[in-house]
Amino acid sequence: MSQAEIGLIGLGVMGSNLALNIAEKGNKIAVFNRTVDATRKFYAEAGALKEQIVPCETIEDFVAAIRPPRPIIIMIKAGEPVDQQMAALKPHLARGDIMIDAGNANFRDTMRRFDMLKDSGFTFIGMGVSGGEEGARHGPSIMVGGTQESYARVEKVLTSIAAKYEGDPCVAWLGENGAGHFVKTIHNGIEYADMQMIAEIYGILRDGLKMTASEIGEVFGGWNKGRLNSYLIEITEKVLKAADPLTGKPTVDLILDKAGQKGTGKWSVIEAQNMGVPATAIEAAVAARSISSAKEEREAAEKILGLPPVGAFQVADRNAFIKDLENGLLAAKIGAYAQGFAVMSAASKEFGWNLPMPTIAKIWRAGCIIRSQFLDEITTAFTKAPDAANLIVTPAFASMVKETDAALRRVVSAAVLGGLPVPALASALGYFDSYRRGRGTANVIQAQRDFFGAHGFDRIDGADSHHGPWGSGLKA
Amino acid sequence: MSQAEIGLIGLGVMGSNLALNIAEKGNKIAVFNRTVDATRKFYAEAGALKEQIVPCETIEDFVAAIRPPRPIIIMIKAGEPVDQQMAALKPHLARGDIMIDAGNANFRDTMRRFDMLKDSGFTFIGMGVSGGEEGARHGPSIMVGGTQESYARVEKVLTSIAAKYEGDPCVAWLGENGAGHFVKTIHNGIEYADMQMIAEIYGILRDGLKMTASEIGEVFGGWNKGRLNSYLIEITEKVLKAADPLTGKPTVDLILDKAGQKGTGKWSVIEAQNMGVPATAIEAAVAARSISSAKEEREAAEKILGLPPVGAFQVADRNAFIKDLENGLLAAKIGAYAQGFAVMSAASKEFGWNLPMPTIAKIWRAGCIIRSQFLDEITTAFTKAPDAANLIVTPAFASMVKETDAALRRVVSAAVLGGLPVPALASALGYFDSYRRGRGTANVIQAQRDFFGAHGFDRIDGADSHHGPWGSGLKA
Repeated sequence: MSQAEIGLIGLGVMGSNLALNIAEKGNKIAVFNRTVDATRKFYAEAGALKEQIVPCETIEDFVAAIRPPRPIIIMIKAGEPVDQQMAALKPHLARGDIMIDAGNANFRDTMRRFDMLKDSGFTFIGMGVSGGEEGARHGPSIMVGGTQESYARVEKVLTSIAAKYEGDPCVAWLGENGAGHFVKTIHNGIEYADMQMIAEIYGILRDGLKMTASEIGEVFGGWNKGRLNSYLIEITEKVLKAADPLTGKPTVDLILDKAGQKGTGKWSVIEAQNMGVPATAIEAAVAARSISSAKEEREAAEKILGLPPVGAFQVADRNAFIKDLENGLLAAKIGAYAQGFAVMSAASKEFGWNLPMPTIAKIWRAGCIIRSQFLDEITTAFTKAPDAANLIVTPAFASMVKETDAALRRVVSAAVLGGLPVPALASALGYFDSYRRGRGTANVIQAQRDFFGAHGFDRIDGADSHHGPWGSGLKA
Repeated sequence: MSQAEIGLIGLGVMGSNLALNIAEKGNKIAVFNRTVDATRKFYAEAGALKEQIVPCETIEDFVAAIRPPRPIIIMIKAGEPVDQQMAALKPHLARGDIMIDAGNANFRDTMRRFDMLKDSGFTFIGMGVSGGEEGARHGPSIMVGGTQESYARVEKVLTSIAAKYEGDPCVAWLGENGAGHFVKTIHNGIEYADMQMIAEIYGILRDGLKMTASEIGEVFGGWNKGRLNSYLIEITEKVLKAADPLTGKPTVDLILDKAGQKGTGKWSVIEAQNMGVPATAIEAAVAARSISSAKEEREAAEKILGLPPVGAFQVADRNAFIKDLENGLLAAKIGAYAQGFAVMSAASKEFGWNLPMPTIAKIWRAGCIIRSQFLDEITTAFTKAPDAANLIVTPAFASMVKETDAALRRVVSAAVLGGLPVPALASALGYFDSYRRGRGTANVIQAQRDFFGAHGFDRIDGADSHHGPWGSGLKA
């Protein structure tokens, strides 16, 4: 029997699906799980794919089953368990073998693990996998960080299992050490912003225009045929139109408005902060989930503060306004994605990754949660202008901003006057307005800082006078 | 000769001023500096205060000059130098002696240092000092973290040097280990938001209403007599009215609009993220400074994207709108301060500090940069309702929000339509609108998450059905 092309440890839902995907695409795979029962069950249920699967009950058999240098995917709970698994695996490996963490790791852990193995003769790949369970089974988007040499060993297998966008596989080597997990983190940060902006638009339609869930679903369905075409808009239509089997009511109307979150949104914001790059739309989305989870506080606050008076939300022309919502969402999306790409661009310099922006956009076009036509447009924009300082100044997106920002202004204005929360939409707009203003207002901040802290300032006329005529220091 | 009551290491501007303040209030103080020259110069220039000062040229003399248990203030560059200084000092100390870091430390360093000394027989105080150089000299706001016992040893000296608000000294013990430096960090985070919101209002007056610097100064001067009365509004008037000695033009018009920042704004945001507490107004302010520093990018972006058309900013009644700006700024300020206090409240639980909110507001009423009448109102509100879930639901502030939020809505709406950036003002408003809405829009986010990730959701009707009728998993 020929040796397996790759190995996989961890037969949970994600690991099992990934293993089945690998087998289905004609790659022989060895699998191992801490508990033997899971391995047996997985194999028993693998049907026709059994031929490509080598179930192993000991780590020795598992390692022996794989063709050296051995690529071994570890797909288990992120954090400490990964370090434990790596330590347990290490004594069984040989020079050149590759440990691949495919879990949702913090890229700083990935950097640490990569460095740890650096001089051991083994290598480490941190691999971001997006697309959820079904993505893992039928085609995820795969973001790889590690040495180029180690990627060469797994490229064929990964290419075979990745999602395809018009034939292009959604997998790429993005850089050394933590590059793949970092990009996956920012993918998720952008996903937070995208989902929050959709939720804000939904809120305007529900609470402002008083539409039913199914009517709102219809609106999103229409948008999915236009420039907003994307997986998230598609499923928004579906969830809005779904009737609850127990009551017959719209399911969304029965769902508690407390959103959970895992670490990636928060990590995106923290890393953006560490590098001093604005990520306000992502921050607003993370904050919105936090506020959502304080349901009892919100209910108490509503009793005390009340909601805005009926009639505070005003729209002259309903249909024109719904068109504004479509264009406004597109404009805001540009802001959020521009921030995400700007964070990656800063990280690329900070960590020496040389991240390929067009490639990142390219492998997000299918397989992952934010997949969309929009990402195909970003791919084109960054391919044409790889050195653009920001997505929003690339010719295609600058035109799109100019075409849609007025709609976003009208949407935010109406929502704000009507007391409907639009924190992410407003953050994206604030980003445009701050970013495209050559002369801002930080001069007054510098004046204040010089006044109370003698921080000094630069002058626009180049004169050599760096303190104001107020003397310096805090006045009594 | 009697022994010194306290010692101080580090005779830079802040350290010298603090030492003079201590001496002036009748406390004998021993001082030491790494370079002897600085010590001699400091002493030579101390004038009548020499009597209270014991200049020391060796660490042995310095330590011997202080009455045990010895409180020793370390006022040097934050970071590594503090650890070095502590290590150098340690061999000379005796059981019960207290090292006090009065620099701008990250509270996590303070926690580490506190723990490090825990079993050594010495204790450690992390002391936040706000008010800049002049505050240090004539009365800062002092936030103390450490053991209560160690605070008792320094309380008298600190009380004598602290700023006074209507006779009340602006110093307090706030909790164990990092409590003082944490509160100082959040003070600065709030300061970022406050300054940014003032800058945004200034921008509306300058670019929207086309007013001159001096006219805008006049407006702020008027506001300083009303409910916005505060140090920051006071100095805003002053800097706006100051003429440049070189050119005779308004100084602010000559200052480059690139704002610097040190670590505290960023730390505030990162810690808020770590705890999952919204701090969007502070985040917006930190982001605004980052965008301001990308001056060249902004100038390039303006060329590409242009500014909003003339006439996009519209105001029906100029005077009424200026009144709106005053009330709107007050409303936004409430949002930013509410976020800052909420972050402290979460940290208090997270780190077991039991932070006293009314006391914090109280010691910020004078001496520090954000000192204001407003903080006196916060003191009262938290004293009356110490267990309030949020500042904005205390009776006094709930009334203030209800009275002023409509003005903030009109301000944000006009600015947003006119293309004037108001990211911090809009964030504060978004916070109100999200926080006071019992039924939010996170239900649609939960539906999406269940659709693509089988995350599950809770129902408002309590029925035991936690997945939608869409099946689960990413659809192809």
